[in-house]
Amino acid sequence: MSKTKKNTGWRQKLHEIIYEADTHAGKMFDVILLCVIILSIIFVMLESVKSIGEKYHDLLDKAEWIITILFTIEYIGRIITVKKPLSYIFSFYGIIDFLSTIPKYISLFFIGTHALVALRALRLLRVFRILKLARFVGESNQLLKALRASTAKILVFLFTVIVICIILGTVMYLIEGGSDSGFTSIPRSIYWCIVTLTTVGYGDIAPATDLGQFIAAFIMILGYGIIAVPTGIVSAEYSRQDRKIHINTQACPNCGAEGHKDNAEYCFKCGHHLHEH
Amino acid sequence: MSKTKKNTGWRQKLHEIIYEADTHAGKMFDVILLCVIILSIIFVMLESVKSIGEKYHDLLDKAEWIITILFTIEYIGRIITVKKPLSYIFSFYGIIDFLSTIPKYISLFFIGTHALVALRALRLLRVFRILKLARFVGESNQLLKALRASTAKILVFLFTVIVICIILGTVMYLIEGGSDSGFTSIPRSIYWCIVTLTTVGYGDIAPATDLGQFIAAFIMILGYGIIAVPTGIVSAEYSRQDRKIHINTQACPNCGAEGHKDNAEYCFKCGHHLHEH
Amino acid sequence: MSKTKKNTGWRQKLHEIIYEADTHAGKMFDVILLCVIILSIIFVMLESVKSIGEKYHDLLDKAEWIITILFTIEYIGRIITVKKPLSYIFSFYGIIDFLSTIPKYISLFFIGTHALVALRALRLLRVFRILKLARFVGESNQLLKALRASTAKILVFLFTVIVICIILGTVMYLIEGGSDSGFTSIPRSIYWCIVTLTTVGYGDIAPATDLGQFIAAFIMILGYGIIAVPTGIVSAEYSRQDRKIHINTQACPNCGAEGHKDNAEYCFKCGHHLHEH
Amino acid sequence: MSKTKKNTGWRQKLHEIIYEADTHAGKMFDVILLCVIILSIIFVMLESVKSIGEKYHDLLDKAEWIITILFTIEYIGRIITVKKPLSYIFSFYGIIDFLSTIPKYISLFFIGTHALVALRALRLLRVFRILKLARFVGESNQLLKALRASTAKILVFLFTVIVICIILGTVMYLIEGGSDSGFTSIPRSIYWCIVTLTTVGYGDIAPATDLGQFIAAFIMILGYGIIAVPTGIVSAEYSRQDRKIHINTQACPNCGAEGHKDNAEYCFKCGHHLHEH
Repeated sequence: MSKTKKNTGWRQKLHEIIYEADTHAGKMFDVILLCVIILSIIFVMLESVKSIGEKYHDLLDKAEWIITILFTIEYIGRIITVKKPLSYIFSFYGIIDFLSTIPKYISLFFIGTHALVALRALRLLRVFRILKLARFVGESNQLLKALRASTAKILVFLFTVIVICIILGTVMYLIEGGSDSGFTSIPRSIYWCIVTLTTVGYGDIAPATDLGQFIAAFIMILGYGIIAVPTGIVSAEYSRQDRKIHINTQACPNCGAEGHKDNAEYCFKCGHHLHEH
Repeated sequence: MSKTKKNTGWRQKLHEIIYEADTHAGKMFDVILLCVIILSIIFVMLESVKSIGEKYHDLLDKAEWIITILFTIEYIGRIITVKKPLSYIFSFYGIIDFLSTIPKYISLFFIGTHALVALRALRLLRVFRILKLARFVGESNQLLKALRASTAKILVFLFTVIVICIILGTVMYLIEGGSDSGFTSIPRSIYWCIVTLTTVGYGDIAPATDLGQFIAAFIMILGYGIIAVPTGIVSAEYSRQDRKIHINTQACPNCGAEGHKDNAEYCFKCGHHLHEH
Repeated sequence: MSKTKKNTGWRQKLHEIIYEADTHAGKMFDVILLCVIILSIIFVMLESVKSIGEKYHDLLDKAEWIITILFTIEYIGRIITVKKPLSYIFSFYGIIDFLSTIPKYISLFFIGTHALVALRALRLLRVFRILKLARFVGESNQLLKALRASTAKILVFLFTVIVICIILGTVMYLIEGGSDSGFTSIPRSIYWCIVTLTTVGYGDIAPATDLGQFIAAFIMILGYGIIAVPTGIVSAEYSRQDRKIHINTQACPNCGAEGHKDNAEYCFKCGHHLHEH
Repeated sequence: MSKTKKNTGWRQKLHEIIYEADTHAGKMFDVILLCVIILSIIFVMLESVKSIGEKYHDLLDKAEWIITILFTIEYIGRIITVKKPLSYIFSFYGIIDFLSTIPKYISLFFIGTHALVALRALRLLRVFRILKLARFVGESNQLLKALRASTAKILVFLFTVIVICIILGTVMYLIEGGSDSGFTSIPRSIYWCIVTLTTVGYGDIAPATDLGQFIAAFIMILGYGIIAVPTGIVSAEYSRQDRKIHINTQACPNCGAEGHKDNAEYCFKCGHHLHEH
């Protein structure tokens, strides 16, 4: 309790504007912040394009300085108005906010570090925070739940895919290593195997021998077949959550058991009537 | 009421032919229109092929003029016979009809605008209108419903994909920007990232450094994994709609059994009449 | 009755061997036929490989003649033993059998028609007939049912994809047509659009302008999103068929209504008891 | 009984450490083994990279010898402590263990066989054994069950894909064989067809003629459509297993309500005890 500052007066108000979105000013702040983030990313993009970067260098440099100063003010504002500044500074968003502000200042002293401004792209993630206020919250929550529930399954799947790629990549290196088709080392063969199994298929490395093409065809059909697995996992998880909606969240007033069906009258665990008053 | 013209006599008849498909003449009109649209698109295609376009230029030009005049007649017919001409002219199909007719006339005065005739391809969308009359209406309605119900989820997903591509594209620019592998600017790196994540993989830009290939492999596996998300969304939505159609939620007033089919008259469990009063 | 020959004695026996698989001889015939078909395809393949085709030309030619004669005998055997020869000759399999036998004979008189022997690959389709005898029949039937039930939906989907490709292909031709990136005509642009939307991505044609790459990125994300649609269709269809298994096939002895649930005691239509004796 | 040695004392203890993971030492052994396997694979990879392989050849050679000796000790340990040594030696993992140890010894006598060390990558499969101890066991079991249950369906599907590829590959050879676009033989055309149908699309072979591109577009759309099939199969299988786990088929002996959860003790409808006798 002693470490948290008591927000009073203007600080309380600023906190509401910056961190919440119930008031008109709070909503405005979020929308403007979103626009400035998008603008800052567009500027960084434009500068990386050679023809534009050289012509409008001064203009873009000035625009980036303005945005950097705006971000600095916002960063300081966030620290001042929050109850526990330290936990904000070392939070996920706090670190991103810091990293997207500091490179421009460093570039004053060290030449070449300027490209780090690109870290600003990470601020886009804040969009999700802002969107949380909107109607998408339910949808993205359901998406996240389905993904989180199937994380373990998807990890097992991805690990299997990587093991398969290491083994088949090694096999392809043994077969194609001699020829001139780009399989110059095992890591590169594994890279090729991932490119093929995921059906990306750049074509910068492609098997040239007959046996290599045969195995490549096998890998492709394998990849074509096992792409069904993550899809099946997420589909099933999604359907399951849908059905869960028909399972309600009340607990039995007698034994506390949860997960009753929507139309349940009695607890499936102890037989107690659920809707007594 | 004062603004809508009363269709009488031939106008009424023409309206039926052009806008409806209950009569024999109306059906014929739709089929002929479809054929002319397809023909006009084939002519535009053929003209764009150099060897054919140069040889048969005069023939194709004449054919396009005939089709343009037919479309003009149809366009005028639609305006005359509809009750509210203005709302047709500024409707989606009205604008498309206008845009697919006018470029040929403009090309008389301004050279080079001829390619705009290609806008005619948009008329193909009318096929859906015509097909509405056929047995596909139920199927495409169900498709549309499932897509519309999952629009919000798919938008959240696509937005996430774009944010991921911006961030990873920027990272790849920082890594591969120096080498000679095509990552010349951030927008181009983002383009590459989309090409990779969606498993298209042209190969016109491909990472050359070891770290770049490692991250590319990561992006591919990511793309391979998250392709499951939209699929899962649409699958679940589809299944949900299926279930909605077939099983209703009423319980038997006698025994309380649930899960009756929509058209059930009697309880499948005890034989009691379900709809007694 | 007058047109169908009565099979007696050896003809009856031959018919059983060729067309049925209940007897030992019938099974043997099917297995041998399958082996010869596969052999014949391997020979055709080998001959197309230049280094092998030139070296072993005489050997392969002799082997193909032997197989052609075997196929001819089988073809004649099928005609003789079947009850309605004409309906066999003009059936799907009858035409394939004829087409896979005749090219070798024609090649005696006309040089260059020899490559038509490749039509023999179509005989592989007979494998499905032979497999019908095996345990896969149930599985492939369920697959076919699910596909057939969703044919209309998939056709609507594919038609939409083709319309999208025609429109976007035309747009890309207008944008990239001037540059040197391979978009030389509208049909070729449409081809590129299909290559991109289906996430194949050869890279033989790839957009070079900024606007072109932007639209290409849009097409890719579109393709990545809508691949969910056919998957969703087939998934839902499959699940539905699974559930159908729990719907039994008995008809009500009173009113004849079908589609009762497995645990139904009374007809949902008329309330009659289903299991009376 | 006479052929199985009785493990006593240290042998019993070693068996527990090597084969089981209930004790602390057993867990440690598994973790260390996993690390050594991963290390050995990294060394093999590094050696295949030319720049590293030449520079650190001696160091890597020593490291590989140490790992080979460790593996040898482990292999001998496994033989000594297991009850039936022969059934281990000729088991799947026994053969892999042997194959990943022996090449290094052979390379002392025969030059060039060294690359066979890459077989060591197969030992990664042991990871699954070790993971069996972890929380992933349930997930991977469910994955395996779903895959095993749909094996027959997936095989029918893959066989169909291969037949389609053979037929379409042959057709493409007849069309593109004359031109200079890489369709030099039927096997190569089939390889191209698999590359295209699975949406990998290297671009090393790509159709050049108009008809070839038309058929290629058809193949792509086909591949885009039928990728839904394996996905649908696995999705449906997964959902089915989900349902199997959670809802049982018993009816309440009192009111006849169905759809009770597996762990239900009392009817959710009337509160009657479900398992009365």
